[in-house]
Amino acid sequence: MDKQEFVSRLAVKNNSKMLMLIMDGLGGVPEIGGKTELEAANTPNMDMIAKASDLGQSVPVIPGVTPGSGPGHLGLFGYDPIKYQIGRGILEALGVGVEVSEKDVVARGNFATFKDGIVVDRRAGRPATEENVKVCEFINSRISEIDGIKVHVFPGKEHRFVLKLTGDGLEDKLTDADPQRVGEPVMYAEALDQGSEKTAKIVNEFITRVAKLLNGKEKISGCLLRGFSNYPNIPKFPEIYKIRSAAIATYPMYKGLAKLVGMDVLDVPAVEGEMETIKSEIKVLKDNYDNYDFFYFHVKHTDSYGEDSNFMAKMNVIEIVDKVIPEIMSVKFDVLAITGDHSTPTLMGGHSWHPVPLLLRSKYSRYGLSKAFNEKECARGSLGTIEARDLMSFLLANALRLEKYGA
Amino acid sequence: MDKQEFVSRLAVKNNSKMLMLIMDGLGGVPEIGGKTELEAANTPNMDMIAKASDLGQSVPVIPGVTPGSGPGHLGLFGYDPIKYQIGRGILEALGVGVEVSEKDVVARGNFATFKDGIVVDRRAGRPATEENVKVCEFINSRISEIDGIKVHVFPGKEHRFVLKLTGDGLEDKLTDADPQRVGEPVMYAEALDQGSEKTAKIVNEFITRVAKLLNGKEKISGCLLRGFSNYPNIPKFPEIYKIRSAAIATYPMYKGLAKLVGMDVLDVPAVEGEMETIKSEIKVLKDNYDNYDFFYFHVKHTDSYGEDSNFMAKMNVIEIVDKVIPEIMSVKFDVLAITGDHSTPTLMGGHSWHPVPLLLRSKYSRYGLSKAFNEKECARGSLGTIEARDLMSFLLANALRLEKYGA
Repeated sequence: MDKQEFVSRLAVKNNSKMLMLIMDGLGGVPEIGGKTELEAANTPNMDMIAKASDLGQSVPVIPGVTPGSGPGHLGLFGYDPIKYQIGRGILEALGVGVEVSEKDVVARGNFATFKDGIVVDRRAGRPATEENVKVCEFINSRISEIDGIKVHVFPGKEHRFVLKLTGDGLEDKLTDADPQRVGEPVMYAEALDQGSEKTAKIVNEFITRVAKLLNGKEKISGCLLRGFSNYPNIPKFPEIYKIRSAAIATYPMYKGLAKLVGMDVLDVPAVEGEMETIKSEIKVLKDNYDNYDFFYFHVKHTDSYGEDSNFMAKMNVIEIVDKVIPEIMSVKFDVLAITGDHSTPTLMGGHSWHPVPLLLRSKYSRYGLSKAFNEKECARGSLGTIEARDLMSFLLANALRLEKYGA
Repeated sequence: MDKQEFVSRLAVKNNSKMLMLIMDGLGGVPEIGGKTELEAANTPNMDMIAKASDLGQSVPVIPGVTPGSGPGHLGLFGYDPIKYQIGRGILEALGVGVEVSEKDVVARGNFATFKDGIVVDRRAGRPATEENVKVCEFINSRISEIDGIKVHVFPGKEHRFVLKLTGDGLEDKLTDADPQRVGEPVMYAEALDQGSEKTAKIVNEFITRVAKLLNGKEKISGCLLRGFSNYPNIPKFPEIYKIRSAAIATYPMYKGLAKLVGMDVLDVPAVEGEMETIKSEIKVLKDNYDNYDFFYFHVKHTDSYGEDSNFMAKMNVIEIVDKVIPEIMSVKFDVLAITGDHSTPTLMGGHSWHPVPLLLRSKYSRYGLSKAFNEKECARGSLGTIEARDLMSFLLANALRLEKYGA
């Protein structure tokens, strides 16, 4: 039996409130002055809470493995990120804010340049996103269904788009319709099983029609499709843990992931500025406090600046989060977790495998070991080094929402 | 899916270089002056590197389990040492330097004393090894094949030898041909499945012929056989991890283990003395640097002196390794790991279950937490306590040889 399934059997309801505060890409490696971004940041509020908390470090997937946002978040939500894999097409769709449901198959698309049936540019010369938007509108105006299946394209950045097919009997066991290099003939998808043959036929008809519609255009004259994905069959978070669950996030990817596991996604009014955005999220938290047991609260830019290798900016986001901690603490939560979905060290300019600092606070914390919230204290914290997918168990336990196992 | 298989899917090639420096049986428990061998040793070089490294401790198999060299090394090489078991016969063969291949079945042998069909001494009075060598030569001169299967015996120490059968259709599902106590009749092997019947017939014919050849000798007058083993079907290390891999070791067992998983075993010229031997190994490392991505570098005597309960001698070997660290560091490696395959505390005079100190150094190390390389610092290191089989994932991650998992 899967750990999550086991924990689910022990889960009971009560009136406790839990908050999971995720700073995306939180962890770092020592860089400026031999410090990580979190170590360099001035975080008096988190440090104070750390003194009354359990600290630890969280391994997103398994040791050494660097996760994307999908597996990183599945782990935080208590799922085994190796057992539950979310297709590339779905992640792309979530990333651009496409709603996906059980009857859909989605795929990642590239606009490309075709010439005499040959792919001569896999990215159509990286068009401006506005041009992409126009081409998607044009395609949607000309192709709305094929063989009774609804067809829709959604623009992404530059040459990227998402194809969504909606209808009965769609399956995703298809090969990619992408030769992966230029100079090769236009490719079509092949069904890998009988159930996917209908989908392959529609996909290939779509490729043909798009090429015909765009025939002769200089740059965008065709499309490539890959990562065909059904809506994943994932047990629902609120049912597994018996908690009313809400997500507070501003980026489509994270809203999409939360929705995928069955959380309610709360609408966060868009505002300018880092502090303003977090304040906007806190307002949503306060407004919805009564209606949920569990809040997933996502801060994006620790990761973005990590990816940009901008140490000071990542540090600054951490300091902004620290400044709002008193306001977050004024909303009474029985259990508070602060961590990230993975590390994004500015030194590396990308996600990494390094464990993520983790703080867990409840009145049952075995506190007193740690003096601050940072990588070093967390490495020596009272929780030890855990897998991300165990975090939900700790949250529930500290909320007294797990029954004793056995007599 | 097995962790190793999962990691294998993420593995990519690049130009990085990795060194795994294994001090066999490295870990200890506090003894002289309340210190372990590693703590008592003067190791300024390793301590300096530790300041710039991740430290942790490595559990060879699972908590509490003391491994032999086989499982100890399988773990280090990334294999699940419970899933992959190497037969006793194979380990014995590797230990005495017998080359084993896919067409072989090998077994551990004891020379014994038979009297009127009864085993009266299972070790033939522990003969001198020279006598063993002579008896093996005699047997090989009289029995070279049975029913088309090549038969060869190799002397070990005292009463021990290895039997190797080579040919088609050999299988190893046989019961031991060893009554395990004296006063019992000479035993023969029984096939546990149909495929092994031919092998049983040959083995029993061998036992009979040896007893006939040696009939009437005072001490060595028969043989016992156990641990029949085929060549294990193990996925190949260089293929799993996509690395050109070389082993630098002086003892047959470790060369054999490395060969078994598919590493190239480099020839180390034999020299006298601890320091000289390690220098000889370093020369091989330097000479072959360009041809490999990964080096397994084995130092034997930390374990040997641990088994002899010789604290000062084990400590001395550690100090000798420390002295050559600057020379090893002058060969540029992107990732360096220093650890052992298990602990061999001199206090216990044998292998133990204690976790093994582990140092991991790359430019992505989350350094700054630890000040020296020893059991205490490692127990509180930034890597936490890991399973040995996760070490390869960390090496590859730090070499940037693992792709991101999921988007």
